[in-house]
Amino acid sequence: MHQATLRDLEPDRIVRLEDDAVVVLDQRVLPAEVIELRCTDAAELADAIKALAVRGAPAIGVAAAYGMALAAMQDQDLDAAYETLAASRPTAVNLRWALDEMRADPTPARARRIHEDEVARCVAMGAHAAELVPPAARILTHCNAGGLATGGYGSAVGALVTAFERGLLAHVWVDETRPLLQGARLTAWELETAAIPHAVIADSAAGSLMAAGEVDCVITGADRIAANGDTANKIGTYSLAVLARHHDLPLYIVAPSTTLDLGTPDGASIPIEERDPAEVTSRFVARNPAFDVTPAALIAAIVTERGVHRAPYAESLSGAVAA
Amino acid sequence: MHQATLRDLEPDRIVRLEDDAVVVLDQRVLPAEVIELRCTDAAELADAIKALAVRGAPAIGVAAAYGMALAAMQDQDLDAAYETLAASRPTAVNLRWALDEMRADPTPARARRIHEDEVARCVAMGAHAAELVPPAARILTHCNAGGLATGGYGSAVGALVTAFERGLLAHVWVDETRPLLQGARLTAWELETAAIPHAVIADSAAGSLMAAGEVDCVITGADRIAANGDTANKIGTYSLAVLARHHDLPLYIVAPSTTLDLGTPDGASIPIEERDPAEVTSRFVARNPAFDVTPAALIAAIVTERGVHRAPYAESLSGAVAA
Repeated sequence: MHQATLRDLEPDRIVRLEDDAVVVLDQRVLPAEVIELRCTDAAELADAIKALAVRGAPAIGVAAAYGMALAAMQDQDLDAAYETLAASRPTAVNLRWALDEMRADPTPARARRIHEDEVARCVAMGAHAAELVPPAARILTHCNAGGLATGGYGSAVGALVTAFERGLLAHVWVDETRPLLQGARLTAWELETAAIPHAVIADSAAGSLMAAGEVDCVITGADRIAANGDTANKIGTYSLAVLARHHDLPLYIVAPSTTLDLGTPDGASIPIEERDPAEVTSRFVARNPAFDVTPAALIAAIVTERGVHRAPYAESLSGAVAA
Repeated sequence: MHQATLRDLEPDRIVRLEDDAVVVLDQRVLPAEVIELRCTDAAELADAIKALAVRGAPAIGVAAAYGMALAAMQDQDLDAAYETLAASRPTAVNLRWALDEMRADPTPARARRIHEDEVARCVAMGAHAAELVPPAARILTHCNAGGLATGGYGSAVGALVTAFERGLLAHVWVDETRPLLQGARLTAWELETAAIPHAVIADSAAGSLMAAGEVDCVITGADRIAANGDTANKIGTYSLAVLARHHDLPLYIVAPSTTLDLGTPDGASIPIEERDPAEVTSRFVARNPAFDVTPAALIAAIVTERGVHRAPYAESLSGAVAA
């Protein structure tokens, strides 16, 4: 077994365009196995996105951009490739944004620029978010908003890395993030390789840690942020938001401006993906919503690469996109 | 594979005393496998309790009672058996209560009476709790407070069964209950065999279901209830309590009076078991508190076999024990 490290997480290791394929690091089996998946056309890539081989809103957008470039290189019908990729997952908005960009300029150069820009946004938003972190912070995070989720560096995890480098971070609590354990598998692995002190917890333990005074703030990524600041993210983020409010702890959302969707007025308009119940249990009837929506009123600040945005979000977010 | 049903959940199938052993249905492998575990002395039984082969506060008390009777039948040192069994798990109070009863009268007849009484308490509290259930109720429960947890019939699940028989219950949301999935494995199995409509959810999905108006109340069991009503139960119950309060939903605790501990003034005095981090993840650093404490202020009512107790709990619970 190849023991992957953060050095393996160079952006083109997470997702890249080759002559005949989009190659993604298969996030379903990390960290136990480090396997690359070659998607030789847009349909195969859409399947890989559906199956979460590549996941995380910005990373999905980057992968889809490469998929459009591949379709153009193969002289395929770009509208068909667009629709196939757009239908792969409904909640993250970066996907459609990247597809729109690529329809206007379906070149490998444009796709690589989208990838580079996403990584650069992560570095910028990490610096902004670190300003919000108090000294000796104990921070709780949910799911994986790391380099894997963004094509490099990470949004929420990027903020943790930046805070750690500045000597501000004492400890990270990592929600294991059922049903697919992105926290226990991916975030814990990224933090381990970055030598950041952390512990994985069952998602249901977050409340009692807050009650015990062991959490200073909550930081997560986002899959889509509506114009009013309502934020869709991995199922469980909403529960954390309510718990954080009950304990007077701030919840910070860290996401690139490509995750903002000013065309969606509020959270009620964000489509929530229902995934296969078998992800929860193979034996019993189950419900498996993959995301929830956190009302803006429960969010202390939304951080993009443009800076720290606070309520009223209708104004602060619109400025972030217009800039 | 033997397909167990609720008919297999006759009280003496869950735990019973034989001539040379206490026999427990191994709850670690249910429902995939139905295996009985023969514990031939108090030490083996203590190991089975530690390992959660038999679990649930009332069921642990019943098993320990049989363990004391077995020790007496084997002419073993009763004080040693008491200490061995008492040390097996720290949070549930029924364990020590049953051991104290058995030290005074270490006969098989007394142990069987404790078992019968626990089941009778379940039936009584189920009837009391059903009075709290509105018509067409969608009820969320956590962990397993069913027949398996109580030696028969169940506390929270007993309330669900009674409400269902009365035509009041529309649907049950079953928290899968990480890390050991007692909800997905045990509660779902009990509800399935009782033909009660239900769906398993990731623990982190409870908040968004409440926000969507799909939950009418939350009902759980308890491992220990302090004199002021603060209640220790499976980790995650506290998070549900905060979420229920935020959504103006009542949380009801259903537990036998043997779970009340008037000698413990409040939740801060209840010892919380920290279990092996490997239950959460075998690869990364983890924390694994097995229980949390829900402040009385977040509990709408505590139901015992004596009736429905409401705040101020210092008075209502003291009456329940004195009766």
